[in-house]
Amino acid sequence: MLTLYFAPGTCSRASLIALEESGLPFEAKRIDTASGEQRSEAYLKINAKGRVPALATEKGVLTETPAILAYIAAIAPSAALAPLDDPFEFARLQAFNSYICSTVHVNHAHGRRGARWADDPAAHEAMKAKVPETMAESFALIEDGMFAGPWVMGERYSVADPYLFVMTGWLPSDDVDPARFPRVADHYARMLERPAVQRALAREKA
Amino acid sequence: MLTLYFAPGTCSRASLIALEESGLPFEAKRIDTASGEQRSEAYLKINAKGRVPALATEKGVLTETPAILAYIAAIAPSAALAPLDDPFEFARLQAFNSYICSTVHVNHAHGRRGARWADDPAAHEAMKAKVPETMAESFALIEDGMFAGPWVMGERYSVADPYLFVMTGWLPSDDVDPARFPRVADHYARMLERPAVQRALAREKA
Ligand SMILES: N[C@@H](CCC(=O)N[C@@H](CS)C(=O)NCC(=O)O)C(=O)O
Ligand SMILES: N[C@@H](CCC(=O)N[C@@H](CS)C(=O)NCC(=O)O)C(=O)O
Repeated sequence: MLTLYFAPGTCSRASLIALEESGLPFEAKRIDTASGEQRSEAYLKINAKGRVPALATEKGVLTETPAILAYIAAIAPSAALAPLDDPFEFARLQAFNSYICSTVHVNHAHGRRGARWADDPAAHEAMKAKVPETMAESFALIEDGMFAGPWVMGERYSVADPYLFVMTGWLPSDDVDPARFPRVADHYARMLERPAVQRALAREKA
Repeated sequence: MLTLYFAPGTCSRASLIALEESGLPFEAKRIDTASGEQRSEAYLKINAKGRVPALATEKGVLTETPAILAYIAAIAPSAALAPLDDPFEFARLQAFNSYICSTVHVNHAHGRRGARWADDPAAHEAMKAKVPETMAESFALIEDGMFAGPWVMGERYSVADPYLFVMTGWLPSDDVDPARFPRVADHYARMLERPAVQRALAREKA
């Protein structure tokens, strides 16, 4: 059995959607990040980093969104969530997800988690002020280059799509109008129509 | 033919070492990041993000260290640089490399690339001041948990090893004494003995 530890609205939403797409049976356990449950003794035993997502499997716990997404794709081959038999296309998918993880998500985090990287409150304000610029820069690169369309990787839907969907969903709170990136905004709207996405969003609200 | 675009001492060193370990023929092209060559018109055509590494292949260009490392492992199976046939172990490897990429490398970058995330010079100083703390925290998690030993993943060397090697090599410049992490420090010393590592370092100096 798979158990996903998640928190609504966070990057763990990508893994939740991927699990819904996969058709695999799984359980979803909510971690209350607002009250700091991710740093509780019990949760640190699951993920010593004190973050969501974490995916508990029979073989052990996996962390890091790109790794969890690729794992879900690998163990549910019939769902065709990644080009598993093509090393170059699989690497392209990993490159996209790695960019989200190391750059886009990190840009966003500077708006609310500045304390990770500086102690001075004035520095947190300076970081927050730049988020609209860094997020827009990243989304311009995605819109004009990385996004093949109609899905991230081209004709075939993959685990890159829920990951991009989560980042696009963060844009309004980052003071960036998604309409500046029409292909990405259209992708967001089409994602909302997928039953798996609707099931994931319903689970978050449950 | 593979062509790696790299800059000495940067995260691209991990990909350079992996290529040397792989036995694959490749060319290495130095990008002068000190003079800003990564933002030249010619280089932006290779990697629109303006960063190293980038790996040019016959099928297109790959970016992002975790994706490049996994690709090298996948196309050189006889070098046994990743557990390609075990989805869970492969995901564990990706989780490690994703943590390096999204957290450890990002921590380090706050010491010298603060301008990515804030405009105020005082904020850059505040970020720089916290780097020894964030790097030490990440390395404590690696030393006490993620690092299986004798190699990152356990008995078998993998593409996680050169990536950790690069991060460990950055610690002194981040004002963190590697001796605080004895297993990681020992790993660094053993990496230096590998012929592929020596060849990669020699290429950087050439
Ligand atoms: N690199 C990790 C980042 C995980 C992460 O930062 N998760 C956030 C939610 S988006 C979190 O748990 N934040 C809680 C905290 O920082 O205390 C991944 O991609 O999974
Ligand atoms: N997420 C990317 C990061 C690449 C990156 O930041 N490279 C640095 C060198 S360590 C660079 O090119 N810096 C030049 C610059 O920022 O202008 C990866 O893992 O490959």
